[in-house]
Amino acid sequence: MDDAVTAEREELAISAEELQLATRNHGFPLEALALDVTPVGLHYLLIHYDIPVVDPAAWRLRLDGCVERVLSLSLDDLRARPSVTQEVTLECAGNGRTLLSPRARSQPWILEAVGTGSWTGTPLAPLVREAGLTDDAVEVLFTGLDRGVEAGEEQAYQRSLTLAECEREGVVLAYALNGGPLPPQHGYPVRLLVPGWYGMASVKWLDRITAIDAPFTGYQQARAYRLRQDEDDPGTPVDRIAVRALLQPPGVPDFFTRQRHVGAGTVVLRGRAWSGSAPITAVEVSTDGGATWFPAEVAPAAGPHAWHRFTATWEATPGEHEVCCRATDASGDTQPVDSAWNLGGYAANGIHRVPVTVR
Amino acid sequence: MDDAVTAEREELAISAEELQLATRNHGFPLEALALDVTPVGLHYLLIHYDIPVVDPAAWRLRLDGCVERVLSLSLDDLRARPSVTQEVTLECAGNGRTLLSPRARSQPWILEAVGTGSWTGTPLAPLVREAGLTDDAVEVLFTGLDRGVEAGEEQAYQRSLTLAECEREGVVLAYALNGGPLPPQHGYPVRLLVPGWYGMASVKWLDRITAIDAPFTGYQQARAYRLRQDEDDPGTPVDRIAVRALLQPPGVPDFFTRQRHVGAGTVVLRGRAWSGSAPITAVEVSTDGGATWFPAEVAPAAGPHAWHRFTATWEATPGEHEVCCRATDASGDTQPVDSAWNLGGYAANGIHRVPVTVR
Repeated sequence: MDDAVTAEREELAISAEELQLATRNHGFPLEALALDVTPVGLHYLLIHYDIPVVDPAAWRLRLDGCVERVLSLSLDDLRARPSVTQEVTLECAGNGRTLLSPRARSQPWILEAVGTGSWTGTPLAPLVREAGLTDDAVEVLFTGLDRGVEAGEEQAYQRSLTLAECEREGVVLAYALNGGPLPPQHGYPVRLLVPGWYGMASVKWLDRITAIDAPFTGYQQARAYRLRQDEDDPGTPVDRIAVRALLQPPGVPDFFTRQRHVGAGTVVLRGRAWSGSAPITAVEVSTDGGATWFPAEVAPAAGPHAWHRFTATWEATPGEHEVCCRATDASGDTQPVDSAWNLGGYAANGIHRVPVTVR
Repeated sequence: MDDAVTAEREELAISAEELQLATRNHGFPLEALALDVTPVGLHYLLIHYDIPVVDPAAWRLRLDGCVERVLSLSLDDLRARPSVTQEVTLECAGNGRTLLSPRARSQPWILEAVGTGSWTGTPLAPLVREAGLTDDAVEVLFTGLDRGVEAGEEQAYQRSLTLAECEREGVVLAYALNGGPLPPQHGYPVRLLVPGWYGMASVKWLDRITAIDAPFTGYQQARAYRLRQDEDDPGTPVDRIAVRALLQPPGVPDFFTRQRHVGAGTVVLRGRAWSGSAPITAVEVSTDGGATWFPAEVAPAAGPHAWHRFTATWEATPGEHEVCCRATDASGDTQPVDSAWNLGGYAANGIHRVPVTVR
């Protein structure tokens, strides 16, 4: 076997370590794009360590660090505060990773790391104001109860936000999903929710919120979740969700190959589009692999951070076709044909391609 | 590269097709063995085609075929009938598949295709009696609303049961899970539940129940889900869940390798054990890779078809260890060290091995 063939096989072959992650981190089945709100159990999950089992009666959230008053809050305390309910589309920063070449060895997402929940929580900003930041505070650090080993060191999952991000509307401490308590896998009893950002910012199983006097340099902020070209590149932080559209795969699937089979005639193509930066202004669809494009009809979103539904009509003729979609947002960003490569495989938002057999 | 190395790489390498299945068919994260009942969203899922979107108001279940009276039942009709609620452990027949060598190309489960739901439904047998089987009836066929392509032919998911199985206690038409309506991914609005059998028997999204006058020979009965040694072997049907125990992995994981890290000292090892044939009578644990075994304490199960909790104490000393467990049931079946190989990778119930680093 020559080296080129071996190299190609290595690129496509998923390792035992990657498979372990794929079997525990759940993807969103793309046919669920039919639904405005993603049912519990179909939303994507990226769980870095183990899901903690939390006793809600004993649980307290501590706000401390560079604050005038340390707060300790129970779940009932948080539920008694003003609440907002909002539909928010969350996406994993690694969505699309296995479509890059060479790919980063991590959770091997194809394109299914997304979901839209109806989240209820209490806004973060008033709580931070109640604790009272001292003058030396520059960021707020969120620590989860989930613990594991990264780069040889045991640690809790931690991410920080700037003070400006903490003030943003929609940033909440969420305690309910789709009208029920948070499921264990989504951060029970309380998680941070940072709409518009990739999911790594929305720290689950909150233990502690700490105002800090220097930018956080922990693993999940300074090493992971950065757009880098090589190991020596400090890179730039991953933050807002890049513009993307996904198609609800038409017709029915072959069990093993997932190849789609559609009857000839009028086919309504459906899907969802979203961006963390601005509302969606256009979705285009192609049925010839991206050679030509036509506009889809785009519906208003349920809120500033929820996906948009789109539909387009296709007169399908017998044969093999490749159906594609691409979205544009109000900031002018459009999906590229091919994702921009980076070392960690983040924010890979190349256009969605669905091979379809029409009979 | 020599052929032996290439062959080994091919065995370990998961293909793009297998990864597509792994990202949509959710596994049970083994830390959830801590919980008696599996929360919605953590139970394993094996969805052959797409999840159907069903309008419950329009949905009717038809009982027909070799019957004296055709029945057409709404969801309310079924909910108005006598109901039973039972904790039932379900496992996919392909659980353990990727640990076999060579392995079948299908859903690449490692060991996480399990879960225990609290299912509510109405017994099947009285409904079949109400329809009244005619003398020529020999089996009952269950047809789901989910459609896809297998071996080149579009079809609905279908499985049959013998008349004796239909009469068995615990076999119900289930419409609730953990106290709520069935989630879409578990068969909303109504599914068959066949306790003790691997999951393929519990047909989801029921459309039709048909008494038939000859054994069913469709794809999911005569070709898939059979224990075969080669392509020419007709094999024997997969049915009851083989005896198995799984450990809740101790300590904390490394994110990428999932290697477990545990502090030295007393460690309580916990897990669950089950069998589709008989109650669990013993679980043994090893902390030296299976060289020596000691008994675990086994708790009673919540019902005849629910898993048993087990615990054992380990004085962990610094170094590398392999913790294992194996179960025995009242029929005398014990888990083998290595699973018995078969072409489809079914019923692979070799002992669970968990590498652990103690510091």
